[in-house]
Amino acid sequence: MVLKRIAIIGLGLMGGSLAYALRGFASCVIIGYDTNEGTLQQAKANGAIDTAAESLMDAVTGADVVLFCSSPSTTILNVLKSMPYLKSGCIISEICGVKKDIFATIMENLPEGVEYIGLHPMAGKEVGGFINADASLYQNAGFIMVLPEKHNADAVTFMKALLAHIGAGRVVYNTPREHDDIIAYTSDLMHVAAVALCASYPHSMTMAHTAGSFRDCTRIATIDADLWTELFTENAESVLPHLRQYIDNLQGFEKALLRDDKTFIHAFLRKATENKQAMLNK
Amino acid sequence: MVLKRIAIIGLGLMGGSLAYALRGFASCVIIGYDTNEGTLQQAKANGAIDTAAESLMDAVTGADVVLFCSSPSTTILNVLKSMPYLKSGCIISEICGVKKDIFATIMENLPEGVEYIGLHPMAGKEVGGFINADASLYQNAGFIMVLPEKHNADAVTFMKALLAHIGAGRVVYNTPREHDDIIAYTSDLMHVAAVALCASYPHSMTMAHTAGSFRDCTRIATIDADLWTELFTENAESVLPHLRQYIDNLQGFEKALLRDDKTFIHAFLRKATENKQAMLNK
Repeated sequence: MVLKRIAIIGLGLMGGSLAYALRGFASCVIIGYDTNEGTLQQAKANGAIDTAAESLMDAVTGADVVLFCSSPSTTILNVLKSMPYLKSGCIISEICGVKKDIFATIMENLPEGVEYIGLHPMAGKEVGGFINADASLYQNAGFIMVLPEKHNADAVTFMKALLAHIGAGRVVYNTPREHDDIIAYTSDLMHVAAVALCASYPHSMTMAHTAGSFRDCTRIATIDADLWTELFTENAESVLPHLRQYIDNLQGFEKALLRDDKTFIHAFLRKATENKQAMLNK
Repeated sequence: MVLKRIAIIGLGLMGGSLAYALRGFASCVIIGYDTNEGTLQQAKANGAIDTAAESLMDAVTGADVVLFCSSPSTTILNVLKSMPYLKSGCIISEICGVKKDIFATIMENLPEGVEYIGLHPMAGKEVGGFINADASLYQNAGFIMVLPEKHNADAVTFMKALLAHIGAGRVVYNTPREHDDIIAYTSDLMHVAAVALCASYPHSMTMAHTAGSFRDCTRIATIDADLWTELFTENAESVLPHLRQYIDNLQGFEKALLRDDKTFIHAFLRKATENKQAMLNK
């Protein structure tokens, strides 16, 4: 496949980083679009994109690949609005952190001859926007690929080459439901845990009272509230059982601490260390 | 004060790092002691200590400063056993992560002429032992200093010089109770949160499904179970209210997710981000 045009819709942290990372891939021309005119011009001025499209329609018309890089709600709107303009043979992708609804909606509306490949890059930062975009954001990041049952092998091969170019690490394949269930733990629950740690704090503390545990456990409490309200609520069905389990685990520890049960606490800590080790080897 | 002998009792991660970091301080001679003969010889062979003492008594006899670097239970035993051998003018310190009981016990038993200064370095690693000791462990680390009501100003000045030499960052002063209450949040609760995140996990996950959120939120789930069983149970009185608050915060989020209350969730996320920012400026 000779590549001509890759359109990136949404040039925030994720889309902007993707644009930078795609430089030099398959002699492509990168067309960018963002509703924020300042972001769009900055992306052009910084060389992240070759062409700043004036509209979503302009960006996707004639594109060989369209990468939608916005929040789930914006992505679904943009995908639906783009469909009349997609050419046959075009590959569309999106990078949303929740897949069940978006996958179903896209598949119901996908034009004949257009291929859809869902992606979820395991990468991010606690700061957003094009200003924080970084060519190395996807270096060694795992990617979850969500494929329609009937998919085009060439399109998948192409997408794997694209991921290799941006430095992606391991690629795993999941159904939308599998994706959402696993991510509910590996990402959503981590964010809930961190946010809840910062819901209240002792006012006499200072940063001199903190070390790496505080730094790491609360890093992502600085969170994009708009995006994550969508991610949590869209994935509530999968998040809730993991959250309930987490609360149960904490209450088990709490009860043990109340009755000064050192044996339980020691075993609880050992088990967590063993589980963590097992996870690192998966 | 012309310094002659600094004894370090316990040469694990913390004591070993302290030994390395103290090199070149005030022309001191560093005497090390550890019940593990292999550790002791390794510390001597690697130049962390000048002299490997054959017993606790040998290590502390004639010492100008004794730094106790073990778990709380071992520290309290070592301090009490050492007391008959401490010379007048000696400064003793310990670096335990919980202070109320140890402070009270030491003060009740402190020999005339011996000064006690409690320290808690805000530094650590998720791996322990002398093998992981590192001269830079205390670089820029905050230190909490816990002083008796009647304390010797020269001893405090000396200890501050020692901390400056090992690269310590900000030093804050707290009573034992204040220390324990604040640490229950900034350290203990972080460790409970991380451990509980690893108490169970979806078996279909792989590391390719994880990103920085998982890495950071679960880093300290690899935990020294012996040490932390002591720290949690010793500080249960202060940990329990913070843990209860944390569980309440999570349950508030859970209820909002159950009723699809986007307004609550958005406000909850905003508040966490604001609180985190406020903490970073304290």
